[in-house]
Amino acid sequence: MASSDFAVSSEKRYFEDYVPGLVLEYGTISISEAEIIDFATRFDPQYFHIDPEAAKGGPYGGLIASGWHTAAVMMRLVADYYMSKVASLGSPGIDEIRWTRPVRPGDSLSIRISILEGKRSTSKPDRGVVHALVEVLNQKQEVVMTLKAMNIFRLRPHGNR
Amino acid sequence: MASSDFAVSSEKRYFEDYVPGLVLEYGTISISEAEIIDFATRFDPQYFHIDPEAAKGGPYGGLIASGWHTAAVMMRLVADYYMSKVASLGSPGIDEIRWTRPVRPGDSLSIRISILEGKRSTSKPDRGVVHALVEVLNQKQEVVMTLKAMNIFRLRPHGNR
Repeated sequence: MASSDFAVSSEKRYFEDYVPGLVLEYGTISISEAEIIDFATRFDPQYFHIDPEAAKGGPYGGLIASGWHTAAVMMRLVADYYMSKVASLGSPGIDEIRWTRPVRPGDSLSIRISILEGKRSTSKPDRGVVHALVEVLNQKQEVVMTLKAMNIFRLRPHGNR
Repeated sequence: MASSDFAVSSEKRYFEDYVPGLVLEYGTISISEAEIIDFATRFDPQYFHIDPEAAKGGPYGGLIASGWHTAAVMMRLVADYYMSKVASLGSPGIDEIRWTRPVRPGDSLSIRISILEGKRSTSKPDRGVVHALVEVLNQKQEVVMTLKAMNIFRLRPHGNR
C-alpha cells in the first residue's frame, strides 16, 4: 500500500491510522542566513555556522546550517502535519541521523515520511510505537538529512470511530 | 585509561587527542520555562511543550522541553568544550538518540562524553572519525538523554606537535 496522506485529520488520528506503507510529504520551510546564524549562535557556535566570511575558507566552502537546526525544522513539519492532536505521547528516541548534504542560506526544506512499522505496547495496552523513515529534502529534491523516528501514539478508544 | 580532560586546549586539539577511554564532563546550562516555550513555539509546538496549563493534564504531568531543545543545549556544551577550534570538520551523523527522562523548567543540564573509538579515514588520509557516547544529565545527576556521536577531526599536521 502507498498513499500520500492520512485517511483522517490530526484531530481524529490514532495509532491505527499510522499504517505501514504510507508515504507522506510535507513542506516547505525556508532557512535564511540570519536564521542559520541566530540558531547556531545560541546552540552550535562553530565558525562555519555563524561567520559567513570565515566559512568561505572552511570545510563546506560557505556558511551551512547546524545539523540540529535542520533537525528542528524537520520537527516543525512533523509537529504541524504528521503528529496527532489527540494521541501523540512523545518519542522514546531517534536512530541513525545522517546529515547527507549541507543546508545553505535560502534553502527550502520539505520532508518525506515513510511509515515502516507499528508495534503495540505489551506493557501499556492503550498505546503503540510507530517507526518511520524521515527524509529531509531541499528545493532540488536532494536528501539533506535522514533519520529513523519512533513515536508513541494512543490507540483509538473503543466506540470512537 | 580514564581522564577528566584533554591534554591540550581546543586551539591545539587534533584527531589524535580524542583518545578512547577519555571521559569528559562539561556544564551546566539551565533551561527556563520561557526558553522551553520559545524553542517549541518555533520548532515543536506540541501542547506539552508550549502550554503549561494544558500540559498539566498531558502525558508528562506538566511542561517539558522538546527533545530537540535538549539536543541543542547538548550541542552548545559540545561546541564550547569538546570540539577542536582547528580540526573540527563536522559530523556525518548521530546514532541511538534516547530521551530517557523529561527535562522540566529550571533544570540544569550537563554532559558526560565517553570517547569510544577513533577511526582514521581510508579515503581521506588527513582526517578521522571519533565515536563517542554522550550522556545529558540533570541537576540530580539523572540521565535525561543519551546518544552516540560521530565527529570528523583533522589529524595533527606533520611537524606540529
